[in-house]
Amino acid sequence: MKDFVYYAPTEVVFGVESEEKVAAEVLKYGGRKVLVHYGGQSARKSGLLDKVCKQLREAGLQVFELGGVVPNPRLSKVREGIELCRREGIDFLVAVGGGSVIDSCKAIGYGVVYQGDVWDFYAGKAKAEACLPLGVVLTIPAAGSEMSESSVISNEDGDVKRGYTSPYCRPRFAIMNPERSYTLPEWQTAAGVTDIMMHIMERYFTHDDDMTLTTEVAEGILRTMKDSVFEVLKDPCNYRHRAMIMWGGSLAHNGLVGCGMQDDWATHQLGHELSALFDATHGAALAAVWPSWARYVYRENVSRFVRFAVEVMGVENDYSDPEGTALRGIEAMERFYHAIGMPVNIHELIGRDLTDDEIQEMVRKCSRDYSMTQGHFKVLETKDLESIYRMAR
Amino acid sequence: MKDFVYYAPTEVVFGVESEEKVAAEVLKYGGRKVLVHYGGQSARKSGLLDKVCKQLREAGLQVFELGGVVPNPRLSKVREGIELCRREGIDFLVAVGGGSVIDSCKAIGYGVVYQGDVWDFYAGKAKAEACLPLGVVLTIPAAGSEMSESSVISNEDGDVKRGYTSPYCRPRFAIMNPERSYTLPEWQTAAGVTDIMMHIMERYFTHDDDMTLTTEVAEGILRTMKDSVFEVLKDPCNYRHRAMIMWGGSLAHNGLVGCGMQDDWATHQLGHELSALFDATHGAALAAVWPSWARYVYRENVSRFVRFAVEVMGVENDYSDPEGTALRGIEAMERFYHAIGMPVNIHELIGRDLTDDEIQEMVRKCSRDYSMTQGHFKVLETKDLESIYRMAR
Repeated sequence: MKDFVYYAPTEVVFGVESEEKVAAEVLKYGGRKVLVHYGGQSARKSGLLDKVCKQLREAGLQVFELGGVVPNPRLSKVREGIELCRREGIDFLVAVGGGSVIDSCKAIGYGVVYQGDVWDFYAGKAKAEACLPLGVVLTIPAAGSEMSESSVISNEDGDVKRGYTSPYCRPRFAIMNPERSYTLPEWQTAAGVTDIMMHIMERYFTHDDDMTLTTEVAEGILRTMKDSVFEVLKDPCNYRHRAMIMWGGSLAHNGLVGCGMQDDWATHQLGHELSALFDATHGAALAAVWPSWARYVYRENVSRFVRFAVEVMGVENDYSDPEGTALRGIEAMERFYHAIGMPVNIHELIGRDLTDDEIQEMVRKCSRDYSMTQGHFKVLETKDLESIYRMAR
Repeated sequence: MKDFVYYAPTEVVFGVESEEKVAAEVLKYGGRKVLVHYGGQSARKSGLLDKVCKQLREAGLQVFELGGVVPNPRLSKVREGIELCRREGIDFLVAVGGGSVIDSCKAIGYGVVYQGDVWDFYAGKAKAEACLPLGVVLTIPAAGSEMSESSVISNEDGDVKRGYTSPYCRPRFAIMNPERSYTLPEWQTAAGVTDIMMHIMERYFTHDDDMTLTTEVAEGILRTMKDSVFEVLKDPCNYRHRAMIMWGGSLAHNGLVGCGMQDDWATHQLGHELSALFDATHGAALAAVWPSWARYVYRENVSRFVRFAVEVMGVENDYSDPEGTALRGIEAMERFYHAIGMPVNIHELIGRDLTDDEIQEMVRKCSRDYSMTQGHFKVLETKDLESIYRMAR
């Protein structure tokens, strides 16, 4: 068991009436001049954006709006936000949307209070020492960014997608009304749950398998997500299951399910390169890579994969054949991905085989020009990254 | 499923080396003149108290010490602390100990910044609007006060034990080194785990049983506590299981296992009166009352008790006899209590039967002079409280 720090100070206001509290929350955390950041037109069409802005203005706050954040959010939009905040003296950020909008907000927050170029943080050239305070009105459960210390930004200059982690960007509050996720299309719903489950699995596959407490909590959330996704695909307006997915998304990535365990994150890194090159949906890119990652690494700790197969995937434990049980758990996960419309390899993700050149390009970027390994469950060298992309293609 | 607010901002620093960080944490959260609050001589004998004070002084902080907190912590000690803090201009509190010391600290924190009498909060006559900031160096896992918004104080004037809840008292940080709990006697270890499990069970027995996500998390923690307590009773220096109990104690009471569910707390209220009258160990008083509470109320939601029996207590589900399964779950809990040395009724707790007068006195206080009900799973009127005490005696 590893020593750990657990710090998840975000105040979560969860439920149908939660949106009524956005102005009170901004005021509580000291906001006066507020940037409301959002994505496409769905936030406006649903009336949520106007509702939030109206409420903030009626509370006497000065409101600025900046929309247009896209999935795999872009550095150019972040720069636009930083400039706007500086020009107007904005002191609080409110993200209305999902992970992309929140991550864009976090990057703006870092950038406003930093003298240099905000990409420095994502490029590993600088460490943040502060961030403008931000709050969230969540519409898409997936990234867990509403409680996390992570953000991921794509730099169009070079098709590079990079994450940065620091406690300064933890949102002050997160307002979560599960009804706001009713209109999510099936694809985004399924990709969101895939991402949520992967945030848990990136921590679950560990050699610190003596931390039963965290393991039990992780399995409980995984089982719930696995059940709830079918209920909301069947009935998009099922409050109970939309709510469990929304809250599960936060718990999956606020640090709880990693306490005491070394986490991995290789699947995320492998998936990021797919998203950067093909603008692939994040959750779907993870599903396309995970089965190959799992088959490549499971022998590092077979009993962990056996536990996953039995406790999460409901596979019968063949005590005489642990490897067989472990592999049947991975197969069960593939069946689950297919059942919710996710790919299980890259061909299914992009509609064709990867070329050798594309594999080489992704390996180069994922290994940071052959200078860096990925993952901890099995430390992946350049040749391992290449093998997994080839298995997954 | 209920709407909810989840807010657990305490920074947890967990592990063997965590104690080295106490001065840095106090400085981070703005402390300059620090009251170190503790209980008996064990904190001094173990060297922990000196280690903490020395570290704070070497960091340039001014340190004041106040010991002598007893289990079921007293209002008189709280008043002494408030006076000391005001006299010396103390701006930060550090609790070194378990729930009693932390709760005493919280009450001091409320009192210092309040013009009236601190007991007003516990008597329900006033609402706190602030609290001096505090941090914790935890030695006894049980109360969960290191991350909770609760505190419980005993007023010697009238043998009254009362709790008060507000977000202001949430500790800024909690330093948790499981090794510090190695020297806990068997009785305190078992009573501590009983309290931890009861913090979960007070939330678990609910009519909001559609909140599967919270239910799964709760069951996972309960199962882990149930296993780990036997391991540490067998081997008090088992780091892994001491660690899981310590972290489990925080998760049990930081709000996580109540999200979306109406909580109950009747067992705690019934137990508090036993502690107030007989100075009984809190955890043991809970064990003495719970089986009777459970048998009195289980018909309000039999399927919840069936789930508890099967998923937590490992009872075989007799699908043809839900009531029988529910009752076998309660019996299994009694066997568990006995196995770890806890009582299952009040006779076992105090060594004799309660007198009728004692029952009447506890019923009067528990019902606040017959003016108040207790609990939510079943709302307990005065006559119900009396029935449960009679069943438990």
